[in-house]
Amino acid sequence: MTIDKLAGSSCSVSRSLAVLGERWTLLIIRDALSGLTKFEAFRESLGLGADVLADRLATLVDAGVLEKRGYQEIGARARCEYHLTAAGRQLHVVIGGLQLWGDANLPRPAGPSTERLDRRTGRPVRVAFVDEGGRQLPEEKIDVVHHNGYPNRL
Amino acid sequence: MTIDKLAGSSCSVSRSLAVLGERWTLLIIRDALSGLTKFEAFRESLGLGADVLADRLATLVDAGVLEKRGYQEIGARARCEYHLTAAGRQLHVVIGGLQLWGDANLPRPAGPSTERLDRRTGRPVRVAFVDEGGRQLPEEKIDVVHHNGYPNRL
Repeated sequence: MTIDKLAGSSCSVSRSLAVLGERWTLLIIRDALSGLTKFEAFRESLGLGADVLADRLATLVDAGVLEKRGYQEIGARARCEYHLTAAGRQLHVVIGGLQLWGDANLPRPAGPSTERLDRRTGRPVRVAFVDEGGRQLPEEKIDVVHHNGYPNRL
Repeated sequence: MTIDKLAGSSCSVSRSLAVLGERWTLLIIRDALSGLTKFEAFRESLGLGADVLADRLATLVDAGVLEKRGYQEIGARARCEYHLTAAGRQLHVVIGGLQLWGDANLPRPAGPSTERLDRRTGRPVRVAFVDEGGRQLPEEKIDVVHHNGYPNRL
């Protein structure tokens, strides 16, 4: 079983992880959400080899999470920047969920290195299930319904 | 750079992915959330080799996401079940976020294999940032604040 098989799964968690489940891809998205666009900036942030980074960026471009844009500084050769697409920006809540889970369950003595705060109150935000009206739903009020022979996943 | 270095990162997204970013771990959590507990059930769902599955389960037990409980059926040898801890159950919203992202951005003609529905209305739930009062916050009303020299991550 390889991770590539996940791309054809009937389960959308599996299909998401076919794109996002490779090492480093979610950290590239974290960095893109905090404003990085240049190959060298991702490389410096993640300490990755150029070949691995190029491979992960290509995966994310192919999947429509990042888009390449050319740019050229005077006297330098043309280069590419990587910008989040609308689909990529939708991953903010997943990255926020991982951040909050880590802060709660794998804390460090120095405290969180990043906080997401309600601009109006300055209080930390949370990530939660919400109803159509945008109100938080407790988990016991959510039904998980399977279709299409699921769970016959992977 | 190995993934293990992430465990000591100042960034809690990185620390979370040190536990959750290995291939298959998030799918094991998905399966545990849908009620699987037995080694053979995970193996059948994921099509994994016993060695890889045992390694991933050990990672999740060490990290406090799953806990082992012994059980014994009459005439059989003692075995272990794997149950989500409170920390593990907190990952429901991350798995739900990945599900919804895949349904929106990597759809299949047959439609979603899993839906999470508001029990009261039967309408799909969403995953979102919420304020202290449990009301959805649009992203433009969230400040992302860094501490402790971040971004000097990985």
